[in-house]
Amino acid sequence: MPSAGRTGVGTNQEDVRRHNLGTVLGHVHRAGRISRAELTARMGLNRSTIAGLVTELESLGLTEQVKPSGTRISAGRPSVDVRTRAGAYVLATDVRVDGLTVARVGIGGAVEARATGPIPSSHDPEAIGDSVVELMRLVVKDVKADAALVGIGVSVPGIIRAEDGLVRFAPNLGWHDVPFAQILADRITTPGRPVLGNDADLGALAEHLRGAGVGVDDLIYLSGEVGVGAGVIVGGRPLEGSGGYAGEIGHLPFTPDGKLCHCGSRGCWETEIGAPAIALAVGCPPDRVAALDEFLNGVSEASPDLRTVGRNLGRGLAAAVNLLNPRVIVLGGYLRALYPLVSEDVDAGLGAHALTAPRELVKVSVPGLGGDSVLLGAAELAFGALLRDPVACLATACHDVESVLAS
Amino acid sequence: MPSAGRTGVGTNQEDVRRHNLGTVLGHVHRAGRISRAELTARMGLNRSTIAGLVTELESLGLTEQVKPSGTRISAGRPSVDVRTRAGAYVLATDVRVDGLTVARVGIGGAVEARATGPIPSSHDPEAIGDSVVELMRLVVKDVKADAALVGIGVSVPGIIRAEDGLVRFAPNLGWHDVPFAQILADRITTPGRPVLGNDADLGALAEHLRGAGVGVDDLIYLSGEVGVGAGVIVGGRPLEGSGGYAGEIGHLPFTPDGKLCHCGSRGCWETEIGAPAIALAVGCPPDRVAALDEFLNGVSEASPDLRTVGRNLGRGLAAAVNLLNPRVIVLGGYLRALYPLVSEDVDAGLGAHALTAPRELVKVSVPGLGGDSVLLGAAELAFGALLRDPVACLATACHDVESVLAS
Ligand SMILES: [Zn+2]
Ligand SMILES: [Zn+2]
Repeated sequence: MPSAGRTGVGTNQEDVRRHNLGTVLGHVHRAGRISRAELTARMGLNRSTIAGLVTELESLGLTEQVKPSGTRISAGRPSVDVRTRAGAYVLATDVRVDGLTVARVGIGGAVEARATGPIPSSHDPEAIGDSVVELMRLVVKDVKADAALVGIGVSVPGIIRAEDGLVRFAPNLGWHDVPFAQILADRITTPGRPVLGNDADLGALAEHLRGAGVGVDDLIYLSGEVGVGAGVIVGGRPLEGSGGYAGEIGHLPFTPDGKLCHCGSRGCWETEIGAPAIALAVGCPPDRVAALDEFLNGVSEASPDLRTVGRNLGRGLAAAVNLLNPRVIVLGGYLRALYPLVSEDVDAGLGAHALTAPRELVKVSVPGLGGDSVLLGAAELAFGALLRDPVACLATACHDVESVLAS
Repeated sequence: MPSAGRTGVGTNQEDVRRHNLGTVLGHVHRAGRISRAELTARMGLNRSTIAGLVTELESLGLTEQVKPSGTRISAGRPSVDVRTRAGAYVLATDVRVDGLTVARVGIGGAVEARATGPIPSSHDPEAIGDSVVELMRLVVKDVKADAALVGIGVSVPGIIRAEDGLVRFAPNLGWHDVPFAQILADRITTPGRPVLGNDADLGALAEHLRGAGVGVDDLIYLSGEVGVGAGVIVGGRPLEGSGGYAGEIGHLPFTPDGKLCHCGSRGCWETEIGAPAIALAVGCPPDRVAALDEFLNGVSEASPDLRTVGRNLGRGLAAAVNLLNPRVIVLGGYLRALYPLVSEDVDAGLGAHALTAPRELVKVSVPGLGGDSVLLGAAELAFGALLRDPVACLATACHDVESVLAS
């Protein structure tokens, strides 16, 4: 996703300049702080062009220039560091079967404020839309007056049609063809429509950019919630499939004639390793699955039932390892708290079913971003418009967020 | 893989010309016959440049220009068709557990001669190397005196290290770390080393270029032999994985505590749908698996056991559909003869376990290239050097093939 600068031969000069402006901003956004010399090297443009772009980002309120930290001795002129400034932010939302999280995330990727709440038990999309907007109101209360809302990104545990944010299917919410982007747009009168993504795809994106998968081109992020999905990056690019539906690993056929799955099939992998299965193994009542992390954190030694979940986790991972040959598998959601308790069983299941050559290359890991991978992935999605064209995006951005969230 | 022409700004002009020469040849090779006007459009170069490149290919003996077939009325000058000429060929080899096939394949992709033989029952790599060379001698007997051998491509049912053609693991041959490219190089004194590829990857390549997957960016080729492997193309590119080991779908964990697999694990998918399982279901003796196609062709109605194989084929395909969301799945090897007999059972297994959205998009198909997908994929691999730089490749190509195959 990081990209070099473009030169202007044969294309519209103004388009090229705006593209380069977004590319510089992207480098600063991902690094948090970066020297102008490093920007010059990465973009392949000359020093004066970079200096001009950096000055323009500064005038837009997006970045600022500071003296490098520490003592640096170099042969030429000393470089200057560029870092993000709190002039732009997004609202990121993580819709899970067991709850809602909304965060205000600044350019640079830091969470500035967050709020969590229950999900309406009906899973009614309109009611969820109302709850999301209420949480948004909480996180924007103390926002700086000159900061601009530049995008809204939303994670949903389901299959999303990218072009319009239609949720084709979210089995654990009971949703079929729910226009959730439109439902939010009806409640928030920003110029840009909210952008939706699949939870696991967004976890993979964030872990690839800022977490356990930095510099790794072949990565799987496993989102272990009530349902289990995978975000897959192959050769440095998201695996999308012909309709954008790739990564539905939770519905891997796993146990012949096994338990009924929310998808309508029987014996899917997620019936053995999803939150309800983990809850059963640790004695967490079905109506308290939202507190499953606490139950797992209270476990000192894994029970035989929990070790069976671990073994099944490893056996299913072997399918992904044999088929995709990833370098890193990141275990997100509840699997993050589960893994340290049963890592030997996971390894045993994986070792019994994965071929040696791909097994030797893969590292199983907890997320580098803790519990925030999916949320920060939704934020990255929301920053997309700003990073494509900062000038155009800021021209239509919202500076009076409380009014657009008015009920 | 088709690519446009390059212009010469800022790079070595001679390198650019050679690259463009290879690109023109690639278009003619894949199309068989193509008009100069179409070449001009696809390459984005001007007419006189294309005319010069075509003339050079003609002088190299690789293509010829002919009058367009049929009557064409056009406003400008009539275009000319370019087609391949039998001036260059490769030797393609398909090493299967149940036999060997060698073909001489001309530029343009047509099989000019083929020979098949048994595989030494020991599966000893040196003995197999000897048998391959004997088959090669048969297919070059009537080769034209002025034709040049430009490459040797070999398919192996195993995990290949691309850089040196080491076979890391071929469970059904019992091979671990066998330097099969070197074993062949020791017997054939051509300048270029033989190039090895995985059978399923080569099947996918050929079906994508010339078969059931033309124009399809997300494709799975399933190689159903004694072992089962997948060649996967995602977003128009081969899925390789971090070590080049992706696609080992035969070892999908499928039946808990199932049959012992050659890989050392239990219950892998291929123990249920590989050639031995099909043979058992149709009453083909284990020592006659090489004749399994004949047994399948003699079946008029599928037995319950064979229908179970079909159902299991569909259930495993659901894993690939849910995870990869392909547009086309091509059933190669013995699955080609099996599929028409049990297509309803395959569909039922797939329908019971695949999610609706990706299920709606996928088409299950027999190969467009019949039984030759893997063999023709090996030929494409062998043509790689010629298509990258025709001049350099022909300069070192072999014109006296019988002497280099001397025993
Ligand atoms: Zn399911
Ligand atoms: Zn196996």
